[in-house]
Amino acid sequence: MSSEAHSSLVEKPVVPENRIQHIDLLDASEDAYEGVNVEMKEPMDSNVFVSLLRASISQWRQKGKKGVWLKLPIELVNLVEAAVKEGFWYHHAEPTYLMLVYWIPKTTHSIPANASHRVGIGAFVMNNKGEVLVVQEKGGKFGGTGVWKLPTGVVDEGEDICVAAIREVKEEAGIATEFVEVLAFRQSHKSFFGKSDLFFVCMLKPLYADIQKQNLEIAAAQWMPIEEYAAQPFVQKHSGFSYIARICLAKKDNRYTGISAVPTSGGFSAKTSFLYFNDTKDLKLKQ
Amino acid sequence: MSSEAHSSLVEKPVVPENRIQHIDLLDASEDAYEGVNVEMKEPMDSNVFVSLLRASISQWRQKGKKGVWLKLPIELVNLVEAAVKEGFWYHHAEPTYLMLVYWIPKTTHSIPANASHRVGIGAFVMNNKGEVLVVQEKGGKFGGTGVWKLPTGVVDEGEDICVAAIREVKEEAGIATEFVEVLAFRQSHKSFFGKSDLFFVCMLKPLYADIQKQNLEIAAAQWMPIEEYAAQPFVQKHSGFSYIARICLAKKDNRYTGISAVPTSGGFSAKTSFLYFNDTKDLKLKQ
Repeated sequence: MSSEAHSSLVEKPVVPENRIQHIDLLDASEDAYEGVNVEMKEPMDSNVFVSLLRASISQWRQKGKKGVWLKLPIELVNLVEAAVKEGFWYHHAEPTYLMLVYWIPKTTHSIPANASHRVGIGAFVMNNKGEVLVVQEKGGKFGGTGVWKLPTGVVDEGEDICVAAIREVKEEAGIATEFVEVLAFRQSHKSFFGKSDLFFVCMLKPLYADIQKQNLEIAAAQWMPIEEYAAQPFVQKHSGFSYIARICLAKKDNRYTGISAVPTSGGFSAKTSFLYFNDTKDLKLKQ
Repeated sequence: MSSEAHSSLVEKPVVPENRIQHIDLLDASEDAYEGVNVEMKEPMDSNVFVSLLRASISQWRQKGKKGVWLKLPIELVNLVEAAVKEGFWYHHAEPTYLMLVYWIPKTTHSIPANASHRVGIGAFVMNNKGEVLVVQEKGGKFGGTGVWKLPTGVVDEGEDICVAAIREVKEEAGIATEFVEVLAFRQSHKSFFGKSDLFFVCMLKPLYADIQKQNLEIAAAQWMPIEEYAAQPFVQKHSGFSYIARICLAKKDNRYTGISAVPTSGGFSAKTSFLYFNDTKDLKLKQ
């Protein structure tokens, strides 16, 4: 291969003058865990890729490196088979790329696992008559069952739980709301391709009462007395749902205080993130 | 191809007798969302795969199907490039397989997103002297910083938060504990390959006091007065950590009640799952 043609991909290690070498290696960055990261960007013939990969791994082995992360954009799908044949395995994938990993030492690898949970919200929107916003879904598990349920939805990657709850109510019922607190959350397993699920029941305050339901997924939406919602056989039958309904009933009667969301800075990153806790008077965290 | 060689993979649709056909299709199951699921198991030549895939998609299109899920075990990596060239894209991957998707209609797809969150725990283990179990890590972000931190770890796929907290304390410090409650949780973003992170601070009760630290990742472990833990500059500097420290201090003084874990059945699945909520006396959920 011409090294000029791949100048953005290769690096030439500095070698002592008395050892004339010409080795093309994959361009890689190092991480804080003795690992190397390779992000392929330009098209490459798979045979050329294999020779660069072998030379690079040999070099990384000499340097005492351990894990190798190889990110292949979907446009470079022609390199996937070659990487797997060299001993790489899949770590995770997103629509636009596949991440593969390789462990250089002869020890058991300590490569961290992929994202393990999907996160969902259920919205408890109560108006000043003590009624709750409920919907009937067109499709899915609840489609055609006649069950009235709280609006629910999936929290997107990068989205705050309290923001997702507001978004879902707006999408499904056309109602603008304010986030009040998290009432409860549930962790369940094997919900979606073997992943676990965290479901947060959020209390929201409606800013007006007029429902404008979305037509694609929602068959019906209405305000319903909380007692009527809680009395549905489906809710009564499953202790998960009946506990949540009883928490909602207690909330209506001011017998329950939920979990507050407080913006904080720092911690794992420099960005603002929400801390959820019982912000009672005794605690006096917010002076 | 010989249809016998792939008898487990193909199905022959029943056709009217006056239209003699011989079409080999990929074996597929249907889901509740007008989708089809194909799980490839046996080795196959990629050209054979492409013709089967094209014939199958044509058939599914006639049936009004929408999404196609294609699961390729890593052993069948030779089929990945062919699938992408036919218009499939990556949905998710685990070490042993790659899941690809395809959308048949000309509309925008409604294929659900991949798992979006990693879940972690921090363990607040307080002994009866009002001391907290703290550790210093060897590597990673805190390695060599001298920061004393709560034991932390990643919740595995399929693992309950309350179980993960007990496991991590046992692994890092060799101490058996009982789960008491969740004190607080924090959601942060872009923590790991763009994924979001949910971190649960769990209070645990130690069953004995003798620390036996793990040597691979932990440089030191000890009991420390909570006030001393909270006074560390690192903790004071970041409001996320200082809030948590103040909650721990309030807990010591009985000025804080956390979030209880109650096993429930039903809901999204028939399995037992934990519901976390403020199980106060007023609520009277557990009679």
